[in-house]
Amino acid sequence: MDRCSILDCTLRDGGYITDWYFGEDTIRNVIKGLSLANLDYVECGYLNPSETKKGMAVFHDIEMIGDYFPNINKKPFMLAMADCAQILPEQITPYTGKSIEGIRVVFYKHQIKEALELCRSVKKQGYKLFVQPMVTIDYSYKEYGELIDRIRELEPYGVSIVDSFGYMDKKDFQDYFKLLDDKLERNTAIGFHSHNNMQLAFITAQDVLDYKTERQIVIDASLLGMGRGAGNLNTELITNYYNRLLGTKYDIRKIMEVISSEIMPIAKKHTWGYSPYLFLTGIYHCHPNFACYLLENHEVTVEEFEEFVKFIPREMLTKCRRPYVERLYEEFSRRS
Amino acid sequence: MDRCSILDCTLRDGGYITDWYFGEDTIRNVIKGLSLANLDYVECGYLNPSETKKGMAVFHDIEMIGDYFPNINKKPFMLAMADCAQILPEQITPYTGKSIEGIRVVFYKHQIKEALELCRSVKKQGYKLFVQPMVTIDYSYKEYGELIDRIRELEPYGVSIVDSFGYMDKKDFQDYFKLLDDKLERNTAIGFHSHNNMQLAFITAQDVLDYKTERQIVIDASLLGMGRGAGNLNTELITNYYNRLLGTKYDIRKIMEVISSEIMPIAKKHTWGYSPYLFLTGIYHCHPNFACYLLENHEVTVEEFEEFVKFIPREMLTKCRRPYVERLYEEFSRRS
Repeated sequence: MDRCSILDCTLRDGGYITDWYFGEDTIRNVIKGLSLANLDYVECGYLNPSETKKGMAVFHDIEMIGDYFPNINKKPFMLAMADCAQILPEQITPYTGKSIEGIRVVFYKHQIKEALELCRSVKKQGYKLFVQPMVTIDYSYKEYGELIDRIRELEPYGVSIVDSFGYMDKKDFQDYFKLLDDKLERNTAIGFHSHNNMQLAFITAQDVLDYKTERQIVIDASLLGMGRGAGNLNTELITNYYNRLLGTKYDIRKIMEVISSEIMPIAKKHTWGYSPYLFLTGIYHCHPNFACYLLENHEVTVEEFEEFVKFIPREMLTKCRRPYVERLYEEFSRRS
Repeated sequence: MDRCSILDCTLRDGGYITDWYFGEDTIRNVIKGLSLANLDYVECGYLNPSETKKGMAVFHDIEMIGDYFPNINKKPFMLAMADCAQILPEQITPYTGKSIEGIRVVFYKHQIKEALELCRSVKKQGYKLFVQPMVTIDYSYKEYGELIDRIRELEPYGVSIVDSFGYMDKKDFQDYFKLLDDKLERNTAIGFHSHNNMQLAFITAQDVLDYKTERQIVIDASLLGMGRGAGNLNTELITNYYNRLLGTKYDIRKIMEVISSEIMPIAKKHTWGYSPYLFLTGIYHCHPNFACYLLENHEVTVEEFEEFVKFIPREMLTKCRRPYVERLYEEFSRRS
């Protein structure tokens, strides 16, 4: 595997666009297309034992994911994501070799305790463990260092820096990377998960090439950048870029085929991607859903939205629930 | 002026989206907003003596541009573009200090002779001269070197590398830059004009920061990336990025105000920006209008479009006229 590898998370992070309902054929075709395109890692969806609908990229049982795998020799490293609010440690069934090889455990800062329990179970059951602490920038360097000390003991396969809100800049990434690079074992991969609110995801994926490290770097991306709000780094862009710059051998043709047959039909019905509203949430370091939720129900100009963002109480900037946004906007409208 | 400065070309390159009809108020407001935002350069539109409609960012007379300037002290360096197919050397009227300060002369490779005549007139009439040879990558290094030798004699203020079709990569930019840097006088600026077919415009604007040169660099950008096909580098993104990285003082607030009041109403009626079709034109080094023209009249999947692009005769890849695209697609459809 090359030093810089790419993890496609279309079915997982792109799922926010379709409520994870892709249909069985699309799940199968996306996994197959990405496999034939030589992607390094494919994240197939979320694990959630209470979810039972067919055709969703949310799986109630680990083994069912294997049924979607293509019948080809060289497959990518297959993963699923486990959110510690959705699955209990005892619900992780043992690794059989017939389904996913790794599990990414994702959690917020207030969930560290439960998350580490889940991580231990993932390891114990024989999976490669990826640890994904969301909103990395929410941790002070001291807090992050302490967290990493605890994660290191679990011998993870990889740990990711997660720019959940798309406003981490070059120096932020470098600083958190340095912390990880200093503390983690040499064979632990470091991942980057970005969002495109300020269109920095592609730039970040270029910046890491300058990092002085022998470690494996794993860059998250999704087809057409499919994902919440401003979306993610585009798989087709970064694979092509790395092919040209690093001589990797991703098959862009196969990637475009799966975009054409599986993602474009979704893009006709749903939108995602950069907008000046999401740029402003980046500028003001607030949760992008303040834009997404508000614009669902209100006609708000970019200028008014900027005023609204400045009206959000500091302590609420990264906490965004739909009814709160609505209530706050009412209050804002009365005042202004 | 900082070493890296930004030229907003919304009214000029964004004009392709509205056929340059913005209306007088919008032209005035955009120029004013960008001025208040401390943009370094503002390109106000095209010069074209045969164009007479009011409210277009195409000006039949140089002096009329000055009427749009805001009544403020610190104004950006104001420019207009002169296409050597649209204006004759003798139609450049003398510099008066009441309108634009500089003129960017733009031309294709087969127009070098006429273009240099026009350049000479621009200089003679007292304007700062910017030379903009389109589709830079169409020139071999030898041809480009010879062209630059001739341009240098004109004592230009600046010369730009123009990635008209959005497929120049990091090394291409470096190589053409080196040629320019070796040949041009030390006080001549070097410009970068990119398109976003492969979303490389932002990356290019970051890459230039690593160039070892004391020269002034001028980066072209437009509000919301407004421009043909995949559009340009977004002014709001690059100004904010440079503010954070270089400590420049662009007023992002003012930029967002002008986006809100002047550009968003246009974005509601017209679309531009990245698409997988335009990405393919980048991959296959063909004119993006093969996608734009075709999709106006036909439902074509991404996969079919890739086949169509491969069907375009090599010598026609960068030559794109509407009737030709239509004819070729008919031929393609019969065959496949």
